[in-house]
Amino acid sequence: MNTRDLREACCAANRQLPATGLVDLTFGNVSVCDRALGVFAIKPSGVPYDQLTPDHMVVLDFDGQVVEGTLKPSSDEPTHRLLLRHLPEVITSVVHTHSRNAVAFAQAGRDLPCLGTTHSDYFLGPVPVTRALTPDEVSGAYEAATGEVILECFQDRDPVACPAVLVRHHGPFTWGENAPKAVENALALDICADLARRTLALDSAAKPVPSHLLHKHHSRKHGPDAYYGQNPIKT
Amino acid sequence: MNTRDLREACCAANRQLPATGLVDLTFGNVSVCDRALGVFAIKPSGVPYDQLTPDHMVVLDFDGQVVEGTLKPSSDEPTHRLLLRHLPEVITSVVHTHSRNAVAFAQAGRDLPCLGTTHSDYFLGPVPVTRALTPDEVSGAYEAATGEVILECFQDRDPVACPAVLVRHHGPFTWGENAPKAVENALALDICADLARRTLALDSAAKPVPSHLLHKHHSRKHGPDAYYGQNPIKT
Amino acid sequence: MNTRDLREACCAANRQLPATGLVDLTFGNVSVCDRALGVFAIKPSGVPYDQLTPDHMVVLDFDGQVVEGTLKPSSDEPTHRLLLRHLPEVITSVVHTHSRNAVAFAQAGRDLPCLGTTHSDYFLGPVPVTRALTPDEVSGAYEAATGEVILECFQDRDPVACPAVLVRHHGPFTWGENAPKAVENALALDICADLARRTLALDSAAKPVPSHLLHKHHSRKHGPDAYYGQNPIKT
Amino acid sequence: MNTRDLREACCAANRQLPATGLVDLTFGNVSVCDRALGVFAIKPSGVPYDQLTPDHMVVLDFDGQVVEGTLKPSSDEPTHRLLLRHLPEVITSVVHTHSRNAVAFAQAGRDLPCLGTTHSDYFLGPVPVTRALTPDEVSGAYEAATGEVILECFQDRDPVACPAVLVRHHGPFTWGENAPKAVENALALDICADLARRTLALDSAAKPVPSHLLHKHHSRKHGPDAYYGQNPIKT
Repeated sequence: MNTRDLREACCAANRQLPATGLVDLTFGNVSVCDRALGVFAIKPSGVPYDQLTPDHMVVLDFDGQVVEGTLKPSSDEPTHRLLLRHLPEVITSVVHTHSRNAVAFAQAGRDLPCLGTTHSDYFLGPVPVTRALTPDEVSGAYEAATGEVILECFQDRDPVACPAVLVRHHGPFTWGENAPKAVENALALDICADLARRTLALDSAAKPVPSHLLHKHHSRKHGPDAYYGQNPIKT
Repeated sequence: MNTRDLREACCAANRQLPATGLVDLTFGNVSVCDRALGVFAIKPSGVPYDQLTPDHMVVLDFDGQVVEGTLKPSSDEPTHRLLLRHLPEVITSVVHTHSRNAVAFAQAGRDLPCLGTTHSDYFLGPVPVTRALTPDEVSGAYEAATGEVILECFQDRDPVACPAVLVRHHGPFTWGENAPKAVENALALDICADLARRTLALDSAAKPVPSHLLHKHHSRKHGPDAYYGQNPIKT
Repeated sequence: MNTRDLREACCAANRQLPATGLVDLTFGNVSVCDRALGVFAIKPSGVPYDQLTPDHMVVLDFDGQVVEGTLKPSSDEPTHRLLLRHLPEVITSVVHTHSRNAVAFAQAGRDLPCLGTTHSDYFLGPVPVTRALTPDEVSGAYEAATGEVILECFQDRDPVACPAVLVRHHGPFTWGENAPKAVENALALDICADLARRTLALDSAAKPVPSHLLHKHHSRKHGPDAYYGQNPIKT
Repeated sequence: MNTRDLREACCAANRQLPATGLVDLTFGNVSVCDRALGVFAIKPSGVPYDQLTPDHMVVLDFDGQVVEGTLKPSSDEPTHRLLLRHLPEVITSVVHTHSRNAVAFAQAGRDLPCLGTTHSDYFLGPVPVTRALTPDEVSGAYEAATGEVILECFQDRDPVACPAVLVRHHGPFTWGENAPKAVENALALDICADLARRTLALDSAAKPVPSHLLHKHHSRKHGPDAYYGQNPIKT
């Protein structure tokens, strides 16, 4: 099994996190999967970003068995695993951060409303906040239960059209068709949360963007009619 | 037709955007026109700023026909075109960003009030927010319609004295006599929006600057009696 | 008359402004006087900070006559002149910025309250906001009238113990025994305004620091009983 | 007595402060003790961080007698000394800053509530604000009295599980098992205060994190069952 590319992509994306301004200390991690090989790579727990090398990445299968690597994976590994396993096939990378504006909405227990075109470009409608975990879920397999409440939010919502969620009391998870895109979605999410925070400070009753404008902007960048960029990517 | 200078000015201004702190990801673009040649140059869609070269710029005529360049222009091109075509001749450059403080006012659907001398130095009175586009306007020629609602705001307002507008649910457009000045106006707009945001947080009923102070400050920097700077520019 | 040292001190302080984070574009200027020579140096109007050399500084006497220099002085020159002329002798430098947190209080027309020890270390009590200028004052010698309303605030207040003021609708002026100290006071003022802004957002009725704590902290750093730093400076 | 290591650790931690973004001007200091030697090192008063060398550090015993060094210690020295003397043995370093978000809670006289998992990872429950000092405490041995009101807060609270406090009207003190950890706690405290500030702006009645989630997250990183990082440290 050749996981070199996977470990390199995972390492590069994790090393990129501090430059995005999304992570403080070691609060953030990226995973990347290879569906053909049936494995994914993830950041090791508590290692500073600038010391990461591809060999530090931990490779696991979808049952959580370590396939390669000598370090312990991120403590959030079971959440990543559940998402990579159950999200649509086109998704191959998951990002978790404690970015400040997204966390504010997660801590306030409030969906991130779609207040403008910046948000519409990335997320088709409000970004949902999960329900709180029960005491049993917290005392049991906590990180896996976190993945389960995230998936609950997408029972009647398309995770490709809304590649982000806010875990209540905790913070954001985002995903994408590859690691750079999942990181871009994490950045876009925090920007949208910042714009929403500033908007709501001016008008606490600010209205969501009208539905026709939401769909127009989203379809400019995504789907069969996209006309943004040089090489529209079908999602 | 020699558009080399035009493409170089356009490229330089677009490349400068990230350093201003006004743009995240690829959310911003600059156009520059040459009225004698009857054409304008604009950023190509979705290309990272640091990769831009003058040859990447797309040159179009005022009917939207591509005259030079192999890339697709910014998806906002029809908005730029309408503005360059209908704004007074002295205006030769348009800038669009999603800068955070200006977007907050746009998303709140609120004119940016003129609360002090910093704003008065750049914009003679409140910076208007456009009306919302109708569903028909959004589903039709959306980007051209965006230009039209901007021009509506200036039916009884001077676009030279107020070189900025907030498109509702979207974000700011600014303009100027050349590209560096249009970018400076984009920066000044976000600074004024930031000052207003902080002021309104302290006093949600903060009053606009008195009219005599507004006109005094504006005329210190603009018009026949300007006495700011070494070479007062007549606008 | 040898004004070389004066021009160098003035140039160095003006060039330092951008690094403090207090100024955007060209919104800020520093003056420095030499009381023995009866002159002061000030930044020229509208010249970018990184292009300034000592030879660019404009030297004037206290009647406003240019003694040295070929450029126009800052348009705020008459305000600086009035302050340097009438403030106590120990003050030799004045700084003006549009720093964002201080401007917010100026635009809200609200004294900056002394809410903690950081403020007490620098400013003995609230930093006052001036009254608004009358229409006649604005249409007449506007910049000199700005200096006059500042001095009004210090008729029964000690400008050495409170080396800062907020000009209503405009922004802060600070001063000090030399240019670095006047710049430091401009920075301390904006920090205190930022702390106050954040505090008032948490509790809009936050109380000022008790009088005994205010005086204790101020006298730790200033006056005959100062015990902060290695070389307590008597002010 | 060989205090070289102590002075080097203290100097390195103090020099690191500006890079954390926690300190403005000279508003912050770190102390480190060696319990075997019965002494501690602290930053000298009012010296810029980038000029500090190990030889500048002031070494004192726990009675406040200077053992080594020619400069005056930080004016906050008696507060550091009281904390190092009375906190549990595992604590060997104390950090004081005026970091902006933590100061906002201190100035508002409000405990920093634990609103999410970021806070839970570092501080087991709300970070307390001290009572105000009395006029007598302020006019007497002010800095020692500051240490005493801090210790009062921990009469029925574990300073290892909550390695931070907010001194009312003033700002934060944090501590840790070594200087880098005490600095990390100062940074984590300001991040948590920033997250709380943003959360409370969205919902002024935001509820604390449920107790089971607080304890789960804290025990993931601290204590005998910690499973975060590569080398779980027992605290």
